[in-house]
Amino acid sequence: MNNTILLGHGSGGIMTGNLIRNLFLKYFNNPLLEKLSDSSVFSVDGATLAFTTDSYVVDPIFFPGGDIGKLAVCGTVNDLAMSGAKPLYLSSGLILEEGFPLADLETIVSSMSEEAQKAGIQIITGDTKVVKKGQCDKVFINTAGIGILEDRYRHISGGLHIRPGDQLIVNGFLGDHEIAIMAARENLKFEEPVASDVASLHPIVHALLEGGVDIHFMRDLTRGGIASVLDEMAENRDFGVSVSEASLPIRDQTQGLCELYGFDPLYLANEGKMVLVVARESAGPAIEIMHGFETGTHAALIGVITSSKPGMVLLQSRTGGTRIVTRLAGEQLPRIC
Amino acid sequence: MNNTILLGHGSGGIMTGNLIRNLFLKYFNNPLLEKLSDSSVFSVDGATLAFTTDSYVVDPIFFPGGDIGKLAVCGTVNDLAMSGAKPLYLSSGLILEEGFPLADLETIVSSMSEEAQKAGIQIITGDTKVVKKGQCDKVFINTAGIGILEDRYRHISGGLHIRPGDQLIVNGFLGDHEIAIMAARENLKFEEPVASDVASLHPIVHALLEGGVDIHFMRDLTRGGIASVLDEMAENRDFGVSVSEASLPIRDQTQGLCELYGFDPLYLANEGKMVLVVARESAGPAIEIMHGFETGTHAALIGVITSSKPGMVLLQSRTGGTRIVTRLAGEQLPRIC
Repeated sequence: MNNTILLGHGSGGIMTGNLIRNLFLKYFNNPLLEKLSDSSVFSVDGATLAFTTDSYVVDPIFFPGGDIGKLAVCGTVNDLAMSGAKPLYLSSGLILEEGFPLADLETIVSSMSEEAQKAGIQIITGDTKVVKKGQCDKVFINTAGIGILEDRYRHISGGLHIRPGDQLIVNGFLGDHEIAIMAARENLKFEEPVASDVASLHPIVHALLEGGVDIHFMRDLTRGGIASVLDEMAENRDFGVSVSEASLPIRDQTQGLCELYGFDPLYLANEGKMVLVVARESAGPAIEIMHGFETGTHAALIGVITSSKPGMVLLQSRTGGTRIVTRLAGEQLPRIC
Repeated sequence: MNNTILLGHGSGGIMTGNLIRNLFLKYFNNPLLEKLSDSSVFSVDGATLAFTTDSYVVDPIFFPGGDIGKLAVCGTVNDLAMSGAKPLYLSSGLILEEGFPLADLETIVSSMSEEAQKAGIQIITGDTKVVKKGQCDKVFINTAGIGILEDRYRHISGGLHIRPGDQLIVNGFLGDHEIAIMAARENLKFEEPVASDVASLHPIVHALLEGGVDIHFMRDLTRGGIASVLDEMAENRDFGVSVSEASLPIRDQTQGLCELYGFDPLYLANEGKMVLVVARESAGPAIEIMHGFETGTHAALIGVITSSKPGMVLLQSRTGGTRIVTRLAGEQLPRIC
């Protein structure tokens, strides 16, 4: 068991973290990778750039709210946006299964194009491989992205300005992507169906930055959910995180499904959600700006950075108790993104 | 048949070209992509950069001369080098099959690291996905690369300076990669085994540029072989290409296997070979420099740019005849890279 790859290695949780530390950092040892940010930030010839990559293997490839093409553009755009960068260019690497319908490919490529236009970026280089039937599942997409970063935002990706008193904000309901994928896969019916939240967060981030919001950290919530992001953020730092359960925006359908399946909404995957850490005085203006966007209608304050319990994430439960939030241990739902 | 993806769509030949034109260019319509260079070149904040991507699905993943990890680094480094850029940074996107041996993954990651060091680049961002057993074949790797380009080399990737009288050079034996993969797959035995030529071409290109060789065009020879590269290079241009069959460096084993299987060496895949178009007076110095490298020991003049037969590639055969060289029509060997 321990000497082969398990689904949990792709979960974005503890096993992924161990694989990164024990294997990738061991061999690809360099200061930029070691930061383990969503984007790697470097300077070249006076320009400061952000660079990131993600592969997308979501199953099913078409789901309520989007498809693998939309996901592949939004996901990488969001990784750039989270570093404070303006996304500029994307690459597109497709692996196709022999026999894949060209009409489906056209739908996916059209989605990619549409999302790229919305995000104001261009797909400028690509590659297509075809493998024999049965050697991959329909289509896998890799996108890598390049963005440009203003020096005044360079502190964001490392969370260097995070300090006690900072406010935590999420831009809406947690878990929509995972609920939508699970419902599509298991053929579950809701009275009010949940669509994936897959969306480009660049417009809302751009508005926040332009609006003068003092952002100390941003991270999109994908595999591993908000728990994993907060846990990574606080790890080995001199501050703690306190989150109020009652303030977390969670849909009734999500809560219900979690109770049914024994899932924890803190670990549900999202594809258009982010957690924002802002200076205390920026919290009000930030939420006001976010409420002006479809991707931020349900933005809410969910917690605060504390000087107590450094390195830890604590959830203040509805019933008055406190529990420590750790990273996802195994895997919740494979091929979620 | 016509409305699904076929193996030939991934061949690097005519079907790949049609897919790019009819689908990708239709939707991802932008001037940078339209150039269809191996790397896309753009300027940002005064820096001129090259950006490229490739996915690697080679089967078997370990083969004489290398493995999928070495291939994934060299291939993308070479795409950058061919534009005249100095490769700087790579991303690494892995898709792993559940149950893949961790020891094999370590070997692959170690190869990637070793090749990155040889090429003087850093792998600064990555992503790992795991899919269920049977949903991909062992491991697929995507790498995207960023390089920096001096303005004086900016003409190279578009072949803007190519003119009649320019000399064509290849850096060694054609087809080693395809022969090695085929032999590994079919369990063929040679008296003198052929290893894949997979190698980073950045060092030799760097020496050529630093040595003042007036390079008008470079392209690495991968899927589709030298035929496809020359054909693409000449397409819609006001020059022709004349290649002498007798001057092409081809191993006896390769020639023999081609005769046995009915393959044409012009279409064999390589992973450490390039064609170089240089000003006439640079041909001698170029070959001299190349002979100083392991990757250039068998460098040879193979042809010339002509003012006659514009847009066409002609092969002067050993027997005195002439034939038109077209692009690969179907697919020769799937999952070659």
